[in-house]
Amino acid sequence: MSLSHVRIVGSGLIGSSIGLALVQEGVAVTMVDSDPRAQALARDLVKSAPSGDPDLVILASPISTISEALKSELTSPVKSGFMDISSVKTKVKAEVSTSPLEAGRFLPSHPMAGREVGGAESARADLFRARPWILDSAGVDPDLRLAGLELISLLGAVAIEMDSRSHDEAVALLSHLPQLVASLLASQLEGADEAWLDLAGAGLRDTIRIAGSSPELWKEIVAANSSAIAPLLTRLIEDSQRLLRGLSDEKVVAEVIAAGQRGRDLIPGKHGGQQRSYTYLPIVIEDKPGQLAALFDECAKAEVNVEDLTIEHSPGQFTGLITLALSEEGAAKLSSHLQEKGWSVHVPR
Amino acid sequence: MSLSHVRIVGSGLIGSSIGLALVQEGVAVTMVDSDPRAQALARDLVKSAPSGDPDLVILASPISTISEALKSELTSPVKSGFMDISSVKTKVKAEVSTSPLEAGRFLPSHPMAGREVGGAESARADLFRARPWILDSAGVDPDLRLAGLELISLLGAVAIEMDSRSHDEAVALLSHLPQLVASLLASQLEGADEAWLDLAGAGLRDTIRIAGSSPELWKEIVAANSSAIAPLLTRLIEDSQRLLRGLSDEKVVAEVIAAGQRGRDLIPGKHGGQQRSYTYLPIVIEDKPGQLAALFDECAKAEVNVEDLTIEHSPGQFTGLITLALSEEGAAKLSSHLQEKGWSVHVPR
Repeated sequence: MSLSHVRIVGSGLIGSSIGLALVQEGVAVTMVDSDPRAQALARDLVKSAPSGDPDLVILASPISTISEALKSELTSPVKSGFMDISSVKTKVKAEVSTSPLEAGRFLPSHPMAGREVGGAESARADLFRARPWILDSAGVDPDLRLAGLELISLLGAVAIEMDSRSHDEAVALLSHLPQLVASLLASQLEGADEAWLDLAGAGLRDTIRIAGSSPELWKEIVAANSSAIAPLLTRLIEDSQRLLRGLSDEKVVAEVIAAGQRGRDLIPGKHGGQQRSYTYLPIVIEDKPGQLAALFDECAKAEVNVEDLTIEHSPGQFTGLITLALSEEGAAKLSSHLQEKGWSVHVPR
Repeated sequence: MSLSHVRIVGSGLIGSSIGLALVQEGVAVTMVDSDPRAQALARDLVKSAPSGDPDLVILASPISTISEALKSELTSPVKSGFMDISSVKTKVKAEVSTSPLEAGRFLPSHPMAGREVGGAESARADLFRARPWILDSAGVDPDLRLAGLELISLLGAVAIEMDSRSHDEAVALLSHLPQLVASLLASQLEGADEAWLDLAGAGLRDTIRIAGSSPELWKEIVAANSSAIAPLLTRLIEDSQRLLRGLSDEKVVAEVIAAGQRGRDLIPGKHGGQQRSYTYLPIVIEDKPGQLAALFDECAKAEVNVEDLTIEHSPGQFTGLITLALSEEGAAKLSSHLQEKGWSVHVPR
């Protein structure tokens, strides 16, 4: 089969982003929202004039509204299959199983993509590009599964089969626990002396970046997956208590830091596979227009690929330290090239 | 006075970086280390041929060795003042006060700079550029204080006066607690299914980045500042327990996430002062040499200053999503410029 018309129920960040991407790929889209204003906005954004029955209905509304949305969709006869995109799969699967929908006509899925901002206004067609998209297609009608795979492929995402329970446990560990920890840590800053906060460095900033996420979105996700998160949070609290008891014992502290290193080393590098070890090349630049351009010009001239980079600034001053992550060979090539050109590059020794 | 000769006891990352920077500024430096091999390496790196007595002695060895280093320095008559650079101030101040050194001849200080890698090999002269450098000069001889201020100024750092107790409480909150939290969180990944780890996104990566830090370094810092860290870790554990009890209650979860947002908003933006609100411009690029250069070339042509940027990659694919942080005006200017040139830019709506 080939998708020609997709109906998307829910016009938030994910639903609207799917709509935008599908229309770009030549698929007709009907955007639906229980809020008439939101539906009008989404239709205006997505700009599609579909006709006939959809090949696929995507339930893209919040977890708490999925049962209701499904019931409302089923009031008229629908021939296509259904697919959802919510962050917690076992709960949704259980709810759908009690609906009048025939077994096999629902494909639970979860695109592992998002932003710290929500709503159709933040939608973008490339949101899913190169991101994992989990599918639980056990017992699902083969045609519906193929429709799901085609959708994922059109959006540039990477389909990964995983049963719903494993999915929920995986995201509890990799997404929900980190979110709660970042929020709990950031909340400790409330009431701190203002002069202290100026001392915050890149370490703290990175650690609490995702604390900027939406309470509205996350309260549902966490509550819906609380049974998978609870044992993880319990273990983290126990480990924290053990550390607290041994806080003045260097052996206890060293073991916590070492265990953290081991855990961090398990996360694969940017292209999947094993973490690559980069050579980091620090360069001091003036923080003004044109400096980054000039630097990356030199990278291109030296034919060196920048794998990653960080920019560090400091309170009250306008010089920046940019650190490029490069292959060892690239770092050697670029640093001698930059030094010839008079850049303030600090060759790692 | 003007510094002409500084003696640096301890040739790790901080001591060697100070040495490198001072020599660049025309100040003679004597590098000293209790380990003869480390001392030879540091002298080779720093390349200085000092003569006569030092104007200032910097104790740059680990906290646990400072008393010993000071005692050894005092075996020959030293006219200059002493300064340390350790991460915990009250403990060092108390230890020094029991030494034979006259009151006023010791200036406790702490440069808020570091790297996830240590040792003289990782030293760089620009390590302190634009970073805060805390001083506790109450009761310190005015000449020694001036020498300290001159040193900080030569290194390009920003001097900030703060009493030792406030310093220790501030770094407990802004540096030590985040380090422990990142390590505790990262350690939870040990034993996880390998297939799950491929799903890790930028959120998790940022949250545990500093978990890569050295256990050797951190065990001393945490143990020495345990009395300031303990109440913070205790409160964090209590907040975590309250969250655990209410994990399936959306109200409880929403309040934790909202408190995290409030805390994060307290951290000033990159140039100090209040956090600036940027407009974020997402652009999809091919992950190959020359693409970043071409992009920043366009930024320079459009005369737009890039305030910050992030690069996001995904497992198994080689396209990257680069998000530029810009002023609202800059974002409008750049996005129309880039669209004219055919870039895959996604204008925020």
